[in-house]
Amino acid sequence: MDVKIQEVISRDGFQMEKEFVPTEKKVQLINELSETGVHKIEVTSFVSPKAVPQLKDASEVATRINRTPDVTYVALIANLRGAERALDAGMDEVNLVMSASTTHNKKNVNKTHEESLFEFQKIMDTVKSTKMKVNGTVATAFGCPFEGDISEDAVQQYVNTYLKMGMNSITLADTTGMANPVQVKQLVSKVKEQIGDIPLTLHFHNTRGMGLVNVIAAMEAGANQFDASLGGIGGCPFAPGATGNICTEDLVHMLDEIKVKHNTDLDKLISLSSGLTEVIGRDDYPGQVVKAGKVSDLHTV
Amino acid sequence: MDVKIQEVISRDGFQMEKEFVPTEKKVQLINELSETGVHKIEVTSFVSPKAVPQLKDASEVATRINRTPDVTYVALIANLRGAERALDAGMDEVNLVMSASTTHNKKNVNKTHEESLFEFQKIMDTVKSTKMKVNGTVATAFGCPFEGDISEDAVQQYVNTYLKMGMNSITLADTTGMANPVQVKQLVSKVKEQIGDIPLTLHFHNTRGMGLVNVIAAMEAGANQFDASLGGIGGCPFAPGATGNICTEDLVHMLDEIKVKHNTDLDKLISLSSGLTEVIGRDDYPGQVVKAGKVSDLHTV
Repeated sequence: MDVKIQEVISRDGFQMEKEFVPTEKKVQLINELSETGVHKIEVTSFVSPKAVPQLKDASEVATRINRTPDVTYVALIANLRGAERALDAGMDEVNLVMSASTTHNKKNVNKTHEESLFEFQKIMDTVKSTKMKVNGTVATAFGCPFEGDISEDAVQQYVNTYLKMGMNSITLADTTGMANPVQVKQLVSKVKEQIGDIPLTLHFHNTRGMGLVNVIAAMEAGANQFDASLGGIGGCPFAPGATGNICTEDLVHMLDEIKVKHNTDLDKLISLSSGLTEVIGRDDYPGQVVKAGKVSDLHTV
Repeated sequence: MDVKIQEVISRDGFQMEKEFVPTEKKVQLINELSETGVHKIEVTSFVSPKAVPQLKDASEVATRINRTPDVTYVALIANLRGAERALDAGMDEVNLVMSASTTHNKKNVNKTHEESLFEFQKIMDTVKSTKMKVNGTVATAFGCPFEGDISEDAVQQYVNTYLKMGMNSITLADTTGMANPVQVKQLVSKVKEQIGDIPLTLHFHNTRGMGLVNVIAAMEAGANQFDASLGGIGGCPFAPGATGNICTEDLVHMLDEIKVKHNTDLDKLISLSSGLTEVIGRDDYPGQVVKAGKVSDLHTV
């Protein structure tokens, strides 16, 4: 079972950067990522520029990038207006996010679960006659920074609601890096059984060092689609200095080492990661393989 | 099966620091680590001060620290002179290191395998009438930065040689962070079967982000003793900026999350890690939990 790599740097990564990443650099990086063999690219999010000023150029980025037929270009949206902007920009897919945690959903999108689902229904009604696909994300699926434990039943209930609404695929997101491998194996097994052939993505953060551990646990439970961010760019709004998404090239390097197919070009990914300082203006990002080299990069005596 | 945590910051960690860590600070940190429930502390190494200037105060550190009965105090040594110094300092255990890789052993200790084993025999002859125990480490057991793959047969052969010499315990070291979880599971299973009840330690580095992944793989193969360094202090001599040993508090935090017993006090470890800047004069060490907090540290709305 090949693993599908889904790149989120230009959305989940850049939204956490202090300095605005220039539109030109975003477009160039996404164009280069399109040539690496990744399955999806989460290009941007069509949300309020006040809420996420770093992505205020969402429409321009989405319309300027080159599209490669094998790549699915995704935008995160929060409401019907976002869906309309995504349609205008010709996105292949939109990603709808609701937190399993009531408190986190309120803090993140200022909505109750009922309000989020009401908005999602309007979006589904609008996009059902189009070719644009919809991915439903259950955020804080493995824990909430305010409420703590999240029940598996709640997660499975929202997954069920998403599928009944007609969403095409599901993401379980460990939004603030609280998942552990025992929990991941159990919840992913249950959700895989629940949704059958519907594509399932795992979105892990490496906030507490367990990101790749959780990938292995999810794979053991049958998952094969993972979000990741080049260089491990991203962060945690609750913990300054904490790392964010799992690192794309570190993930791919691990898959290479354990001989799992992933269809991406590790050397290209490492090369793009090593150029990230030019894009984000800092060199202290968490990617490890970009600093240490691949296991197969032998040294001369 | 409880996991035993073995702290190596004052040897493997400090030897990589640019600035000399003052003797007083070393002693104080080791004294505090003695109160955290760790199984062993690798205090220092009795090697040439020219080879490792950061540990030139080895004898002073080893004799000044407080000893706690439940903790095994270890020193790394390279030759008979080191063993004599360790005996003088009243160490509980010495750790002998030979690389499975011919090239790495030559680079690391300037000896052939035969020369290393000849020295080890002299050490065994000297310490056999004492109470001091001997741990034998097979370094580069999961890969060599010069030679690449290391055969499992070679590793098992050196393990066998160590045991025949009368060594009390074995460490397999992933010296430059080249191990992957599939390989770990296989080699650890084989060595566990080979050595039975002889204690086996895994010494992993997180150089390429797989440190904790490899811990889980090793546990699945029956291992329960792990070296780790507070704050993830350490490094890789071949890759400036690359991280070193797996991080003690991140490891313990993961064990807490998956409900595996470890007998250490996570809060004390995190507190000591958060004070490391005072010890090493820099705050850019790789520990993640010390920045992000524990999963159980909930935030107020």
